[in-house]
Amino acid sequence: MENKFLQKLIEPAHTKIAMIIMDGLGGLPLEPGGKTELETACKPNLDAMAACSALGLTIPVAPGITPGSGPGHLGIVGYDPIEYEIGRGALEALGVDFELGPDDVAARGNFCSVDADGRLTDRRAGRLPTEQSRELADILRTIRVEDVEFFVEPVKEHRFAFVMRGVGLGDALSDTDPQKVGVSTLPVQALNAKSQRSACITNQFIEQACERLAGRQPANMITLRGFAKFPVMPSYSELFGLRAAAIAVNGMYRGVARLVGMQVLPVEGDTLDAEFSTLEKNWNAYDFFYLHVKKTDTAGENGDFARKVEIIEEVDSLIPRLMALNPDVVIVSGDHSSPAVMKSHSWHPVATRRCSRCGRPGGVTSYGERACARGSLGILPAKDVMPIALANAQRLSKFGA
Amino acid sequence: MENKFLQKLIEPAHTKIAMIIMDGLGGLPLEPGGKTELETACKPNLDAMAACSALGLTIPVAPGITPGSGPGHLGIVGYDPIEYEIGRGALEALGVDFELGPDDVAARGNFCSVDADGRLTDRRAGRLPTEQSRELADILRTIRVEDVEFFVEPVKEHRFAFVMRGVGLGDALSDTDPQKVGVSTLPVQALNAKSQRSACITNQFIEQACERLAGRQPANMITLRGFAKFPVMPSYSELFGLRAAAIAVNGMYRGVARLVGMQVLPVEGDTLDAEFSTLEKNWNAYDFFYLHVKKTDTAGENGDFARKVEIIEEVDSLIPRLMALNPDVVIVSGDHSSPAVMKSHSWHPVATRRCSRCGRPGGVTSYGERACARGSLGILPAKDVMPIALANAQRLSKFGA
Repeated sequence: MENKFLQKLIEPAHTKIAMIIMDGLGGLPLEPGGKTELETACKPNLDAMAACSALGLTIPVAPGITPGSGPGHLGIVGYDPIEYEIGRGALEALGVDFELGPDDVAARGNFCSVDADGRLTDRRAGRLPTEQSRELADILRTIRVEDVEFFVEPVKEHRFAFVMRGVGLGDALSDTDPQKVGVSTLPVQALNAKSQRSACITNQFIEQACERLAGRQPANMITLRGFAKFPVMPSYSELFGLRAAAIAVNGMYRGVARLVGMQVLPVEGDTLDAEFSTLEKNWNAYDFFYLHVKKTDTAGENGDFARKVEIIEEVDSLIPRLMALNPDVVIVSGDHSSPAVMKSHSWHPVATRRCSRCGRPGGVTSYGERACARGSLGILPAKDVMPIALANAQRLSKFGA
Repeated sequence: MENKFLQKLIEPAHTKIAMIIMDGLGGLPLEPGGKTELETACKPNLDAMAACSALGLTIPVAPGITPGSGPGHLGIVGYDPIEYEIGRGALEALGVDFELGPDDVAARGNFCSVDADGRLTDRRAGRLPTEQSRELADILRTIRVEDVEFFVEPVKEHRFAFVMRGVGLGDALSDTDPQKVGVSTLPVQALNAKSQRSACITNQFIEQACERLAGRQPANMITLRGFAKFPVMPSYSELFGLRAAAIAVNGMYRGVARLVGMQVLPVEGDTLDAEFSTLEKNWNAYDFFYLHVKKTDTAGENGDFARKVEIIEEVDSLIPRLMALNPDVVIVSGDHSSPAVMKSHSWHPVATRRCSRCGRPGGVTSYGERACARGSLGILPAKDVMPIALANAQRLSKFGA
């Protein structure tokens, strides 16, 4: 649905919407005809929501499309991920709480290892400890090229966020990471005329980085990829009239939330318990809560079916704490599938449960992919979940007379 | 989904996709509450694919829209049939293996019978034998109008493909066939300014045809309809990165396949057995196979419920030969519905089965319209089947980081 159309129908209300997103929730059976991770999990609390729930399967981006984390999250929080494409670089910068300006060009950086001839020997410099990355970042920060300002923010291990700030810098730039060892890193190429100057400046930065890191072990070079500016997007309050808060422990998801204008709330520690405590503590101050669970995706990407089941069961055990807050609408879903058997993100639609007072339950009690395929929400684009949540929260007026 | 969006995500792979399309597969029960043709058919081999299958219902063009053969096939092979409209004339020319140029204007021609006053007595000249049509076509080929080149290619019985080749010929032309007897054939009218010259030339051609066929029995006149140029379409290899082959015994379907850049493979005879032999013989040379079964549609249009069931059962009996080739993804579907009770094409969504290793079965075992309505693919536009097939064949990269 066109966002602008929806915007005209938004009405103020005192209702509260909670969205619990288990990253990579969607799964597949280990053997043909078997149960998925979600179907396997014992989840009495989620199942008990049946009487007030409607089920469906959400398509994250489009049929057959496997989403990266950015598009996956944009979809489920209500934006068309094809219309609002976020580059990897912008996500990386957002993830380390960097305040990206509208003209800044960001990229994802790796510290890497090259041999005497400049050929890559390790694309991640042996997954360099974060502490060492910090030191190297300090060295890179001393680089100057013309009047452009550079920011180098360590992320984790060998990864860093790279940002350049200047006037008239385009972001249509090619990656320098050749994605394999035994060859040299690539020079940055401008992919359009407006990015010629950025390419030239980035190449000078890389040249100086190479000189300053020379002789260091194991990281003596850098790669940059996913050059991107911050996409211009309407905010949650503009679009949906919601004071929205995000609860997430991982940078990229905090970044996406900040991008759409959610307030990112502090979490003490990285446990699910801590995330639910943050939810409880801030319940009165916001209309909408996006609570992100990372570990389901990690387990899926590691091929650990049993661990993924365990995390889903842990989330289930925390549901009573959410329900005790008496939310008007609860969405339980995922941003995409990460089936353990595939060890990666996938395109499969995701089981989605919407619980509210004025919902129309579909007569299905269990919350799993098969059940959701027969649910009363049907199989729908992820971006359509927010309008349905708003309606159930009495936040949309009638269209037309 | 926008084709260009998909195009960016295509990756090379060594996987193989087979699409078995039973023309007019969709059906209706003979009596309210009864079984459709597909539900009636005994199809143990298709049913045995259940464990690795997902089911859905495909909408050929748009809800409520009954497709002709062209749009029906374009949809299921992955193109938006509304965006890429193929005129009947272009289809007819493609069907007889005519190499239609980008500026050629094609039409479907009929040899017909008129009385002494020029009034139609038989729109098909008694379904003139093909041999006689060939002779008459030779006569029409001698016609000359200005510097325009004419091609007259016999199709079958009274039908022929008419093509004119020249500079600046528009194809917005009205039909000459009045669709009833007892009245004269109509003059061609230009429906836009760019087609004025084409109209004038075509009318001169028809006048000369009338003179040269005068006195012949039973065919002494022609009608022309469905004037159209070849639509400009991206090819299968451009769009999907597939070396695609088509196996079809009827001209129009070979024509559609050629239009989208598939290699049309020779079939020895017109049996299903011969089509599957062609599939086996060429299995190693292509990534994608489109195998078209015409007889389901013929039975549906003839109102022959039992015959349609029989053909579906015959297709089922050949499925083991396909599975023995070890395809990565199999799509079994139809291009549209042709319920025997309606004796015509219809708008009803078509039962679609997708079988692959990384599919998520929906717990439904039988392959019929009712089961497919509850399937895990949902009710989806036919053009979305190809992206899902590509994903299952590991031929689409992740979208976004």
